[in-house]
Amino acid sequence: MTDDHNADADGAMSFIFEAGVLKRAARTGWWFAGVKQPESIADHSFRTALIGLMLAAMEGADPARVSMLCVLHDTQETRITDIPHIAKRYLTATPNTTVTADQVAAGPPAVADLITAAVAEYEAGETLEAIVARDADKLECLVQAVEYRHQGSNNVQRWIDSSRAALKTTSAHRLADAALNGQPLAWLTPAPPPEQPSDTRP
Amino acid sequence: MTDDHNADADGAMSFIFEAGVLKRAARTGWWFAGVKQPESIADHSFRTALIGLMLAAMEGADPARVSMLCVLHDTQETRITDIPHIAKRYLTATPNTTVTADQVAAGPPAVADLITAAVAEYEAGETLEAIVARDADKLECLVQAVEYRHQGSNNVQRWIDSSRAALKTTSAHRLADAALNGQPLAWLTPAPPPEQPSDTRP
Amino acid sequence: MTDDHNADADGAMSFIFEAGVLKRAARTGWWFAGVKQPESIADHSFRTALIGLMLAAMEGADPARVSMLCVLHDTQETRITDIPHIAKRYLTATPNTTVTADQVAAGPPAVADLITAAVAEYEAGETLEAIVARDADKLECLVQAVEYRHQGSNNVQRWIDSSRAALKTTSAHRLADAALNGQPLAWLTPAPPPEQPSDTRP
Amino acid sequence: MTDDHNADADGAMSFIFEAGVLKRAARTGWWFAGVKQPESIADHSFRTALIGLMLAAMEGADPARVSMLCVLHDTQETRITDIPHIAKRYLTATPNTTVTADQVAAGPPAVADLITAAVAEYEAGETLEAIVARDADKLECLVQAVEYRHQGSNNVQRWIDSSRAALKTTSAHRLADAALNGQPLAWLTPAPPPEQPSDTRP
Amino acid sequence: MTDDHNADADGAMSFIFEAGVLKRAARTGWWFAGVKQPESIADHSFRTALIGLMLAAMEGADPARVSMLCVLHDTQETRITDIPHIAKRYLTATPNTTVTADQVAAGPPAVADLITAAVAEYEAGETLEAIVARDADKLECLVQAVEYRHQGSNNVQRWIDSSRAALKTTSAHRLADAALNGQPLAWLTPAPPPEQPSDTRP
Amino acid sequence: MTDDHNADADGAMSFIFEAGVLKRAARTGWWFAGVKQPESIADHSFRTALIGLMLAAMEGADPARVSMLCVLHDTQETRITDIPHIAKRYLTATPNTTVTADQVAAGPPAVADLITAAVAEYEAGETLEAIVARDADKLECLVQAVEYRHQGSNNVQRWIDSSRAALKTTSAHRLADAALNGQPLAWLTPAPPPEQPSDTRP
Repeated sequence: MTDDHNADADGAMSFIFEAGVLKRAARTGWWFAGVKQPESIADHSFRTALIGLMLAAMEGADPARVSMLCVLHDTQETRITDIPHIAKRYLTATPNTTVTADQVAAGPPAVADLITAAVAEYEAGETLEAIVARDADKLECLVQAVEYRHQGSNNVQRWIDSSRAALKTTSAHRLADAALNGQPLAWLTPAPPPEQPSDTRP
Repeated sequence: MTDDHNADADGAMSFIFEAGVLKRAARTGWWFAGVKQPESIADHSFRTALIGLMLAAMEGADPARVSMLCVLHDTQETRITDIPHIAKRYLTATPNTTVTADQVAAGPPAVADLITAAVAEYEAGETLEAIVARDADKLECLVQAVEYRHQGSNNVQRWIDSSRAALKTTSAHRLADAALNGQPLAWLTPAPPPEQPSDTRP
Repeated sequence: MTDDHNADADGAMSFIFEAGVLKRAARTGWWFAGVKQPESIADHSFRTALIGLMLAAMEGADPARVSMLCVLHDTQETRITDIPHIAKRYLTATPNTTVTADQVAAGPPAVADLITAAVAEYEAGETLEAIVARDADKLECLVQAVEYRHQGSNNVQRWIDSSRAALKTTSAHRLADAALNGQPLAWLTPAPPPEQPSDTRP
Repeated sequence: MTDDHNADADGAMSFIFEAGVLKRAARTGWWFAGVKQPESIADHSFRTALIGLMLAAMEGADPARVSMLCVLHDTQETRITDIPHIAKRYLTATPNTTVTADQVAAGPPAVADLITAAVAEYEAGETLEAIVARDADKLECLVQAVEYRHQGSNNVQRWIDSSRAALKTTSAHRLADAALNGQPLAWLTPAPPPEQPSDTRP
Repeated sequence: MTDDHNADADGAMSFIFEAGVLKRAARTGWWFAGVKQPESIADHSFRTALIGLMLAAMEGADPARVSMLCVLHDTQETRITDIPHIAKRYLTATPNTTVTADQVAAGPPAVADLITAAVAEYEAGETLEAIVARDADKLECLVQAVEYRHQGSNNVQRWIDSSRAALKTTSAHRLADAALNGQPLAWLTPAPPPEQPSDTRP
Repeated sequence: MTDDHNADADGAMSFIFEAGVLKRAARTGWWFAGVKQPESIADHSFRTALIGLMLAAMEGADPARVSMLCVLHDTQETRITDIPHIAKRYLTATPNTTVTADQVAAGPPAVADLITAAVAEYEAGETLEAIVARDADKLECLVQAVEYRHQGSNNVQRWIDSSRAALKTTSAHRLADAALNGQPLAWLTPAPPPEQPSDTRP
């Protein structure tokens, strides 16, 4: 139908506009911790995806798929908000897969199928990629908590502890150790060149 | 060596901390447009990845790989800043691939190899996935410009025009049409149910 | 018990600290409208209380009680977030009275009784004071939408319409007319002195 | 006169728009303490009103009236700014009651009478309700200072000391103790159930 | 005295720390106009100084001295706040020269003498340099108002009008014309090369 | 030519609008240090100019000229961004004098000559005024780092160290000592009156 020749693109763009909310929406838990202007949900999702693809390479999972799962993992929060842990006593939420289905319903079927399958995989948490993606989510929260502590917040320990406790893969635990023992500014000071093979030739 | 048993994880975490800068760093072009508190580079990268995977599904590219290319596409900006267009008259930058190589050098080889290959693919811009990822980057900028215009900014047309002019795929052009003709809040008003196949069978 | 001699004050302070979250937490609907740094829930509650006491004076309700109902009307949002309208499709929330009961349980009984009774009255919406307080809540949202429109946001009409539609008292409708026809800066230009009774009597 | 049939509502709305400034205006003292984006005057007024009604219940004052006095206690600051302590060496201000009279002059007489009487009572500081409201103002400042200290600010002690020194009621002192000994996040960890009545042993 | 050998540097640093407040403190008038996060007083002072030295070159005044007068022209606002116009009905302020005298009293005499003389010159408004500096102050406000209008604020006309009305020099009026007729982004589009003397003579 | 009678004022205003970007643009190094909303380049330039004129008085340089050099010292950053130290490994920049020449080319010749000469003097760093202005730039950074540390940032030592190491004048070193040993809020507590001349009356 001529009027509707761009209808599926309109549907896709509707979801893209919707996802723009995540660039403005705060991760609400940090308000509890006293942070006035917390990171956005998009900020968190970005680094989750970056951590996810790195962790995948360390764990032998598919890095590209993990990055996609991570990009999508909080996209439902435009409609159900970033529900903090304490809210779970008071709120009952529809499964994320239902929200996602509504979000992509008006888009091209190929897009809808892709996204609903990825969200379903993440939510089920059974594939190695989903496990790694979920570890990336927790690890990103831990790293952010460490960073806020370096900014002076003295109320972030519970986020560090609960994130750490949820990690499943060995590599995520190794990265968590590195985060807790490391220094956010280490990258500004280039590492010394790798040790040379000792020069003990006669 | 026992002291260094976690050295590659430290190297990986060093890059993760570095990427945290992108959650705070502004997309500098919007300062020109008069926006006081622009989106972060991470905000932009997140939605670029989301658009990228959708566009890949529409164009028959690999959505997961596109999402990974998009997540990585601006990670060099911790070290070279978000260089605005006008700065190109005054600054000469090392290729992004060089910056990336430095960023991941201290991490696990599997991580370093993965990321350097992905950045090289994006920078070369030859594979379908790279083409789609680059369109996603431009399209995200266009959509953000449209959103700022809805917030009152009357100085964003040049970002819309230059982004649009750079688009290469058919689907990106269709999404750009949808963005320019659409309404950011359309998603809050559920679409009417899809037209039923007319039920005139006997 | 000596250790606990200040236990009820600790309980009261626990709720006061909790309410501090409302000074940082954004009214989430404005993120949908494109506002980057929306007002806090506390900001909204403050002016709701101010409008409430004025409206009470116009409607013959008890202004002090209305102001108290308004101060308390969103205090549950520390635990259940500011649930936007669209979220109601996906979330089921415990009644506000239950949340409030938990929030004040550890405080002095006189405080707990006061607050639970006030929240119950507001939630029931039957007394004139509750009706006026609820109108104040809607009217405050309408005025904020008008103010954002004066700042350039062109996406606030739905907040104006839905707020207006919910108003019940005559005075609230008169104030809404004044908001829609008025100018936020009128107060900076002192009104001319009130017209004198025309002095043409013989 | 038909043109003016809504004139008193216009006058009321003029004050409501004026009060909107308090949602944007910062509490200026925190700039001295180094806080970049301090709470708004509205943020402070909201929690002052909440503390006020709680303190009233503890001290046997009228909680509703205290909440109203607190909501109004800084509304003059749209016109005279939030004058920091040091400014008192350099500025002489008209009494708040004069400012208030100007602010409400164009509104309905019932509103003007209500507000001028409440402000006069607060400024006189003689009734129990005014004493409690003024303690709430000081206590809110103390609690905010404690919260900023938990965020890393090491320059807030003078606000704690001067606020504490101004408290008059016993309950306010007890709450101040609770604030200084307590933890802003205590509310996230539910208290253990209250000790059971002792076990009826003989 | 040995303990005090750095006392005058301590006094100078005390004023430097004090001036740091101006980097956080907002120009309060913009809150009236609806701007949520206005420019800082330092932001304004910086561009005032830049405009001042340019205007001086156009008017034949001493650019260096004008820039110094501009840098200092609002430094008293740490102690007396940025008093908006309406506040002048309610507040009486000590002369700025008195405030400045207190601010620099503990610094080196050469510093104190320099600053008190410059402030006195600016406040007297009689030298050409002071006249130009005062025009720069007004012009900067006008330009900022134009910029906010380009961001969507529709309430800035009174700042444009009152600033313009206060301008005294011919060059300031010419710059005001340029601001009102110009486009904030003109600088991003390089001017065409200056017309060449046409070279077609025989 | 009649159409162009205001062309040089348009050119001057074009630079004034361009400099408005510096009121929005962040000092990027602080993002590395973890600061979410850093000071603007204008904020920094303002206090640099204030420090510069004070330092000039202490060192016997021309305070007015130093203040002008400081106001202009970062104005190129609209076009080349605030390039952080690490970026110097990756970026090669045109000299600041070239950028400045482009910025003022369309303005009145008297303005262009003034500004290009001042920037050239600052960049050459040979006159006493340029040396003092450059010390002021470094000292301002050191003081800001101290202030961020008082706000809780524990990652600012490298900015303190590198700024301090670059100082050249004796007075700048004395001020640095005062900053490191001092307290940002000292100015709020008036110094005791200066010691009286010893009481040598008979």
